[in-house]
Amino acid sequence: MADYKAPQKDMNFALSHNARMAELAQLPGFEEATDDMVAAILEEAGKVANEVLSPLNEVGDHTGVKLEGVDVPTPAGFADAYQQFAEGGWGSLQFDPEFGGQGLPYALSIPVMEMWQSANMAWGLCPLLSQGAVEAIFHNGSDELKAKYLPQLVSGEWTGTMNLTEPQAGSDLAAIRSTAKPVGDHYRIKGQKIFITWGEHDMAENIIHLVLARLPDAPPGVKGISLFVVPKFLVNDDGSLGERNDAKCVSLEHKLGIHASPTCVMAFGDDEGAIGYLVGEENRGLACMFTMMNNARLAVGLQGVAISERAYQHALEYAHDRVQSPPVGSREAAPIIQHADVRRMLLTMKTMTEAGRALAYDACASLDFAHHSEDPAIRAKESARAAYLTPIVKGWCTEFAQEVTSLGVQVHGGMGFIEETGAAQHYRDARILPIYEGTNAIQALDLVGRKTLFDGGEAGAAVQAEIAELIEQLQAQGSFAAEATQLQAALELAKTAQAELLNGAKDDVQLAGSVAFNYLMLMGTLCGGWQLLRAALAATAELSEGGDETFLSAKVNSARFYSAQILPRSASYAQMVAAGSESVMTMSDDELASAWYS
Amino acid sequence: MADYKAPQKDMNFALSHNARMAELAQLPGFEEATDDMVAAILEEAGKVANEVLSPLNEVGDHTGVKLEGVDVPTPAGFADAYQQFAEGGWGSLQFDPEFGGQGLPYALSIPVMEMWQSANMAWGLCPLLSQGAVEAIFHNGSDELKAKYLPQLVSGEWTGTMNLTEPQAGSDLAAIRSTAKPVGDHYRIKGQKIFITWGEHDMAENIIHLVLARLPDAPPGVKGISLFVVPKFLVNDDGSLGERNDAKCVSLEHKLGIHASPTCVMAFGDDEGAIGYLVGEENRGLACMFTMMNNARLAVGLQGVAISERAYQHALEYAHDRVQSPPVGSREAAPIIQHADVRRMLLTMKTMTEAGRALAYDACASLDFAHHSEDPAIRAKESARAAYLTPIVKGWCTEFAQEVTSLGVQVHGGMGFIEETGAAQHYRDARILPIYEGTNAIQALDLVGRKTLFDGGEAGAAVQAEIAELIEQLQAQGSFAAEATQLQAALELAKTAQAELLNGAKDDVQLAGSVAFNYLMLMGTLCGGWQLLRAALAATAELSEGGDETFLSAKVNSARFYSAQILPRSASYAQMVAAGSESVMTMSDDELASAWYS
Repeated sequence: MADYKAPQKDMNFALSHNARMAELAQLPGFEEATDDMVAAILEEAGKVANEVLSPLNEVGDHTGVKLEGVDVPTPAGFADAYQQFAEGGWGSLQFDPEFGGQGLPYALSIPVMEMWQSANMAWGLCPLLSQGAVEAIFHNGSDELKAKYLPQLVSGEWTGTMNLTEPQAGSDLAAIRSTAKPVGDHYRIKGQKIFITWGEHDMAENIIHLVLARLPDAPPGVKGISLFVVPKFLVNDDGSLGERNDAKCVSLEHKLGIHASPTCVMAFGDDEGAIGYLVGEENRGLACMFTMMNNARLAVGLQGVAISERAYQHALEYAHDRVQSPPVGSREAAPIIQHADVRRMLLTMKTMTEAGRALAYDACASLDFAHHSEDPAIRAKESARAAYLTPIVKGWCTEFAQEVTSLGVQVHGGMGFIEETGAAQHYRDARILPIYEGTNAIQALDLVGRKTLFDGGEAGAAVQAEIAELIEQLQAQGSFAAEATQLQAALELAKTAQAELLNGAKDDVQLAGSVAFNYLMLMGTLCGGWQLLRAALAATAELSEGGDETFLSAKVNSARFYSAQILPRSASYAQMVAAGSESVMTMSDDELASAWYS
Repeated sequence: MADYKAPQKDMNFALSHNARMAELAQLPGFEEATDDMVAAILEEAGKVANEVLSPLNEVGDHTGVKLEGVDVPTPAGFADAYQQFAEGGWGSLQFDPEFGGQGLPYALSIPVMEMWQSANMAWGLCPLLSQGAVEAIFHNGSDELKAKYLPQLVSGEWTGTMNLTEPQAGSDLAAIRSTAKPVGDHYRIKGQKIFITWGEHDMAENIIHLVLARLPDAPPGVKGISLFVVPKFLVNDDGSLGERNDAKCVSLEHKLGIHASPTCVMAFGDDEGAIGYLVGEENRGLACMFTMMNNARLAVGLQGVAISERAYQHALEYAHDRVQSPPVGSREAAPIIQHADVRRMLLTMKTMTEAGRALAYDACASLDFAHHSEDPAIRAKESARAAYLTPIVKGWCTEFAQEVTSLGVQVHGGMGFIEETGAAQHYRDARILPIYEGTNAIQALDLVGRKTLFDGGEAGAAVQAEIAELIEQLQAQGSFAAEATQLQAALELAKTAQAELLNGAKDDVQLAGSVAFNYLMLMGTLCGGWQLLRAALAATAELSEGGDETFLSAKVNSARFYSAQILPRSASYAQMVAAGSESVMTMSDDELASAWYS
C-alpha cells in the first residue's frame, strides 16, 4: 500500500492564499504564526503523519477492535502513536494557553488535523472528537469544570467523546430519552447511547464523555435537552483519578470501514446511575453541543479532503508503476498514467481534493477572524461567512470523497477490488463521511434553511460578491478569460437558484427539502472553482516572480481543469433545483413499491 | 436484511414495451414466447430467486470462500441452490434445442438472469459465466467440441469460466503469455491466469475453462492469441469423466465484495501441461472470445441494474419502517419516506434502475432480431444497434449502480454503515461492476472508437432517429410536453457531442480518450430518458384502457422524475465533452505529484 506523503506545499499555499494566513498573523495573539513558523509546524506534523500514523492504517483495518469484558484494546501500535501525538503537543495547537494550549490560529491546526485523517482516519477520529469535547467545555463549562477537565483534554492525556445518538434518535435529537437526575452538586445519568466513536479504548487513561440527557422536569423536544460531562473515571479534587463511573461500553459495531475506530454502544447508569456534571445551563444542551458540532462538521468535511488526498496519492503511484497497453501514438505498452482517461480520473481526484482543501481552510480562517478580530463588524461578517460555508464544506467535500475514493479504486483496475491493494480501504472508510456529524441531507437543509432562507440570502450574497470580485480580477489579469467565463456562468446559476429558493419556498413547503441536496452541490461546485481560481491567480503572480515552477504551474493547470471539467456540473445541479418539488413529491408511497410481483 | 422480491411487473412491462416482445414472438422459432408464457416463466424464476437464492446472499458474504488444498468449498446452501437451478432448466432458456436448450428468446432469459444477480450476485456469476462459455463454444467450436461439451454446459451439469487475464495482461490482452503446444489432436497449455471467477468450486462435477494462449509460432499481439477448451476433468468419448487435468486453483483473492464468488489464480500446466482443445481457428482466439464477451458485457450491465434493484428494495423498506423527525407541516415524527430528500434519493434509485432495465432488455432484444429475423436488412440494422448499445448498457448501468447502492447506504443513515444491515454489502458487491468484463474506460473507448468514429456516427444517428421519433409521439400525445422538451434538449446535446467527436478526432489524437467517459455517460443518460418515456407513453395508453393504475401511474411518474431530475445531467456531460482534451492533457506528470513536501 502506498505510503502517505503530507502535501505540505499545497497546504502552505492554501493557508497563504486561501486562508489569508498573513492577515491572521496580524490578529492579537497570533503574532507567532509567521510563514516560517507555519511551515515548520507542518513539516514536523508531516513526519508524525508519514512515519508513525500512516504505517498503522492498513493493520488497523485488518485487526479492527474487539470488546474484551468492558475494555477495548486497540490495534498494535495505536496507543504508542497516540502517546507520541500527545507528547508532541499536537492536540493543543489552537487552544487557549490558560489551559495548556499553544494559542495558534484554528486555521493552522486544520492542515495538521488533515494529516492525521489522511494518514489514518480511524485513529484520527480520536483526537478529532477530543477537540470537540474541549470546545464544548471551553465555551460552555463553568470555571470549575474547565479547571478540572480542560488541561488533560488539551494535553491529550485524556480523550473526549460526543454522546448524542440513541436508537430512536439519530438525526432527530428531539427524540432523546436518556435521563439525568440531580443529586447534590452532580447528576445521575441513565440511558443508552449508540454510534459513540472512541467511546472506549486503551490509548489514554481517562475518557471524558459529553452526554445529552433530559432532566426530570424538562420540556419535550430539543428545548428539554441538557449537556453533561461524564468521565469514565471520576476525577478527584487533586486531579487524580478516582472510582470507575457507571458508564461502560457494552458492544461494538461491525462496520463497512474505519475498522480500527471503536464505535460503541454505551450504557450509562446500568447500576446506580453514571455521575455527570452539567455543562452550561439546564435545557440548553443542544446549543452547547452545537459549539462542538459546528467545528466537528468542518473537521468531517476536512476528512473528506484527507481521504481523497490519500486515495489520490495511492492511485497516482499505481498509475506510474502499472504498465499496460500502448498509449495513443505509440506501439509500446506504457505506464497507464499516459492514457487520457487515467489522467482524467487523476485530475478529477487531484483538483476536487485541492478545491476542497482550499475551501475548508478558508472557512476555518473565517472562524479565527470571527473570534479574534478586534473589529465587531469583521467578527460578525466572518462569523456569518463561516456559518454559511460550514454545511458546504461538510456536505460537498464528503460527497466528492465518495467519487474520488471510487476513482481511486477504478484507476487500479482489477487490483482495486483486492483488499491487499489498499484502495478499497479508503473507499470503505470514506463511506461514513456523508452520514455522521449530521447527514448530508441535514447539511443541505441547514444551508437552505438557517443559512439562506432565514437571512434572506444575505450570507450567500456576500460569498457571491467575493466570487464576482475574483471574476473581475481574473478578467483584469488576462490569462484566465475562459475560466472567468466558466466561473461567471456558475455564479449566475447559483444566484438564480438562490432567488428561486427565496421566492418559491414561501408558497411551496416541499421546495426546500426537495432541492436542498442539489443546491448544496451547486454551491460546493461553485465554491471549489472560486478557491482554485483564487489560487491560480496567486500562483501566476508567484510564477512571474520566479517561484517553484512545477508546483505553481500545477496550481494554474488544476484550476483550468476544474473550470473545464468540474464547473460544468453546475449546469445540471441548477436545472435540478429549478425543477422544484413536483417531480419529487408526486409519486405515492404505493407507487414506489408497485413494480413487484405480477 | 430485506428480502428480494422479483419486480415481475416491471420486468413484464419492459419486455412488452421496451424489448418488443410481441414482435419477437413472431420470429421463426419464438412462437412459444407469448405474454402468458413469459409471465409464467418470470413467476417461477421469481420463486427461485426470492426463496432460494436471496436468503443465501448474506451468509455467502459473511462466510466467503477458502482454498482447501486445490478445492474450494462453497458456503452452505450454495451447491443445493445450484442443483435446483440446474434441475429447473434455468440455465438453458435461450440455448439451441439441439444441445438441450429451450430455444426461447435471449431477451426473455435476461430478466431471469437479472433475478439471479439481484438475489445473490456472488452466486449468480457462476451461471453468468457458464452462459458465456456456451456461447463461445456454440459460435466457434467444431461439431465434435459442441457435442462433447455443450449439452452438459447447457443443462448446468457443468459450469464454465473465462480465462483471459494474466498479471501483466489486464485490459491489454496483447500482452498474454500463456502458451499452447500442439500434441496430436490436442494442445498442452501452460501459464498462469488471474481473476478467474468461479475457477474452482464444488457446485458442479466439472468445470470447463475457456483459456486464451499463444501457439509456438504465433505472431505477437492480439493476432497471435488462440482460444482453448480446458476441462477440469478430461471427458471420455462416452461422455463420462476421466482424469483430472493439469489445471488447478492455487489461490483465492481477498476482495472488497462478492465474497462468496471464488476469484481464482489458476495454474495451467504446472506439471506436464494442461490438455486443451482449440476453439475456432488458430490465432483467432480474440474474435472467438468476443462472441462471449459482448453478451457478458450486456450481462454485467444487467448486474448493475440487478444490484440497484436490490439496493432500492432494501432502502425502500427501511424508509417505510424508520420513524424519525416530523416531516414538513407536521409535529410528529414519521417514517422517513415522508421526507422530501429521502424521496429524492429513492426516486433517483428507482428511476435509474428502471431506465437501465428497459435499456438493457431492449439491447438484448436487438440481438434476438439480429440472429433470428429472416430479413437481412433487419439483421444488419439490429446487430449494429445492439453493438452500439452494448458499451452504454455496460458502462452507464454499472456507473449508476455505484450511485444507487451508495444512496441505498445513505437512506439507512448510520445503520447503513453497519454490515449487519446489509446495505453495505450491495455497495461493496457493486464496486466490481465498472471494472470487470472490460473497465468502463474500455467501454467508453469502444463506444467512441469502434461504435462511433469507425462508422462515421451511423449507429449513433440511428438511435438518435428513434429518439427523435419518440419526441414526435410525445408531442402528439400532448401530456408530456415538458418531458419532450427535456428529451429534445438532451438529444441535441448528444448530436452536437457526436459531431464534435467526428470532427475533432482527426486532428486531435487525444480527443477520443479524453472525452470518452463523459460521452458514454451523456449517451447513457439520454438513452435512459428515451426508454422511460417510451414506457410512459405505453403506460398512459394502458391507463386509458383501465390497466393497473398504481403500477402504470408509477411508470408515468418515474419518467417525469427522470426527465426533471436526471436528464439535466446531460448538460454537464455535454460541456465536459465540448471542453475537449486540452485541460486533460496539459498537466505534466511532475505537476501531478508536485504538492508533496515543502
